[in-house]
Amino acid sequence: MRTRAAVLEQFGQPLVVQEVELEEPRAGEALVRLVACGVCHTDLYTASGADPSGYAPAVLGHEGAGVVERVGEGVSSVAPGDHVVTLFSPQCRECAHCLDKRTNLCLAIREQQGVGLLPDGTTRFSRVSTGEPIRHFMGTSTFSEYTVMPEIALAKISPEAPLDRACQFASGLSTGLGAAMNTARVAAGSTCVVFGAGMVGLGAVAGCRLQDAERIVCVDLSEERLALARGQGATDTVVGGPDAVDRVLELVGGLGADYTFEATGNVRVMRQAVESARMGWGLATVCGVAGKGETLDVIPRYLITGRRVAGSSFGGVKGRDGVPALVERWLAGELDVEPFVSHHLTLDEVNRGFELMEAQDGIRSVISFS
Amino acid sequence: MRTRAAVLEQFGQPLVVQEVELEEPRAGEALVRLVACGVCHTDLYTASGADPSGYAPAVLGHEGAGVVERVGEGVSSVAPGDHVVTLFSPQCRECAHCLDKRTNLCLAIREQQGVGLLPDGTTRFSRVSTGEPIRHFMGTSTFSEYTVMPEIALAKISPEAPLDRACQFASGLSTGLGAAMNTARVAAGSTCVVFGAGMVGLGAVAGCRLQDAERIVCVDLSEERLALARGQGATDTVVGGPDAVDRVLELVGGLGADYTFEATGNVRVMRQAVESARMGWGLATVCGVAGKGETLDVIPRYLITGRRVAGSSFGGVKGRDGVPALVERWLAGELDVEPFVSHHLTLDEVNRGFELMEAQDGIRSVISFS
Repeated sequence: MRTRAAVLEQFGQPLVVQEVELEEPRAGEALVRLVACGVCHTDLYTASGADPSGYAPAVLGHEGAGVVERVGEGVSSVAPGDHVVTLFSPQCRECAHCLDKRTNLCLAIREQQGVGLLPDGTTRFSRVSTGEPIRHFMGTSTFSEYTVMPEIALAKISPEAPLDRACQFASGLSTGLGAAMNTARVAAGSTCVVFGAGMVGLGAVAGCRLQDAERIVCVDLSEERLALARGQGATDTVVGGPDAVDRVLELVGGLGADYTFEATGNVRVMRQAVESARMGWGLATVCGVAGKGETLDVIPRYLITGRRVAGSSFGGVKGRDGVPALVERWLAGELDVEPFVSHHLTLDEVNRGFELMEAQDGIRSVISFS
Repeated sequence: MRTRAAVLEQFGQPLVVQEVELEEPRAGEALVRLVACGVCHTDLYTASGADPSGYAPAVLGHEGAGVVERVGEGVSSVAPGDHVVTLFSPQCRECAHCLDKRTNLCLAIREQQGVGLLPDGTTRFSRVSTGEPIRHFMGTSTFSEYTVMPEIALAKISPEAPLDRACQFASGLSTGLGAAMNTARVAAGSTCVVFGAGMVGLGAVAGCRLQDAERIVCVDLSEERLALARGQGATDTVVGGPDAVDRVLELVGGLGADYTFEATGNVRVMRQAVESARMGWGLATVCGVAGKGETLDVIPRYLITGRRVAGSSFGGVKGRDGVPALVERWLAGELDVEPFVSHHLTLDEVNRGFELMEAQDGIRSVISFS
């Protein structure tokens, strides 16, 4: 079949929306018709050429939600008509990591996914003109009317959930929520600090609230984003800067916060998160993706005096189990994802989504497929 | 009363053993007759002038064991005749940290102890000639025939325990044991890597063994120390170097070790400990004290993929409760502390202890008081 898709042809150049060939799903795969897809910094990171493991040509996009159209041989966990959220972080339910409650880093298809191939080592996308293969991206490739994905990378969600909002659970929002709920396991009554009020940081604020934190301080450069953070449950907000640690400690007390979260990708902010964590037991959770070659420089004394540092990938969420559960909490009214959608775009406007992100205009652009 | 003590008169110069004046214990304090005292790197660190928070004149020494001679007003937890181990890390049993199981960092007397004073802000030591106060060190000052210490810094141990061995539990050994047992809480059947086979590292190896780790790899530059590590339970040993991570991963499998420990104070080795920890859940515990201005530089990707970093001060041991318990395990035959004592010295030979340490000759020199 043919589908319209946004293809990364050259790093640093706009994506090219075009008709491409899409093969039928093979064993263990499903064909998904996308209904909505968020435009995320990770897409831009690869499109710009900054990601050292990037490749082209490839169909980008990973924050998708849609409907299963057809399934390949042996597929049993999803069926045509099911509503799904796409998972760049799959859950095979069989590998050593899926069977272990301490991690969500499924080992099943990492290698092939990392180089833009489906688990059998091939692509389903190709050029209409030449038949040249076009690679997948993050195992998802959701900047496309249709995509083919491994069954283990599809979270089946309630059909009640509007898909143009549900797509947010495919990436940053779940990362932030999960960082608080799974990675840090924020304790009720505790004091939390979230650095960064983008999608991940706002998710972390909401996650701290759902964990019944008593105090949630959010730090960001933008007053507008800090207002969104207050809407998600932040009890205090601080305009960021080089003195953010001092100002956070003034608010939470000199020993520091029980839990801190970094959601910026900036290694200097990661260090602020470590230095704002409480002596004795404070846990700093790093969520952002740093630039190549950058390091988080920790003064060992902060560790010796009882602080801990952790990291979170997709919020420690085991996607097929965890995303539907988070969607249920949203449907139950415990989460308000409405304020995150700042722009509505068509697939043809995908590059506009990147521009808005670079201009730090709003939290999320969502592409709707007609 | 008068007592002979080793006084730090000038940074970088040998300690001067001399008679000093020692006042009687005041409220909440006890007079302790030292029987034995280890010579530790922390003493040398201050004596050399490298410690930015050092001060002089001061009576150094902190790895002491002895007998309570007299107690001040209101002292109830120790009595004359009790055998005690001295604690640079006290346990008041009343502060927010003592009442919390997550940390051993008692807050009661930190400030005064840090500047060489007893809790009431004065010293008990002074010069015979001029009456000039001589400061305490780490709240202990055990390079002295007699010392006065806060009651909350004395761990009452079994009278069965030979004091010239028990003194080892005052510092490095408990730090290493506790790092494995309290900070990391090594799980049975797990794989551990210990970087450094000095007192702290050997304690960590023994701690991993007591926690029933299945595999314990020890990394050190010295074959002699690695032999001691095997004696404490190391199942594999690796001669350290810039390629230590690769060689450890070859031994334990490419994903890394469940628990790693750093016991060197070298920030490059701390980084090796982080990079040897297992993807998904590996915990790196930093025990060493780094030089001023040095940082542990962590590539954030190691965190995002599930590794955690923690630090340990005195092994997370709440001293008055924990040290007697560790001594009991030694008396029960679960620990062999004999191989750690490499040299026996008199108080007058204390500077020889520093020389042996600088020459990396043996693990521990122990001063016996006649």
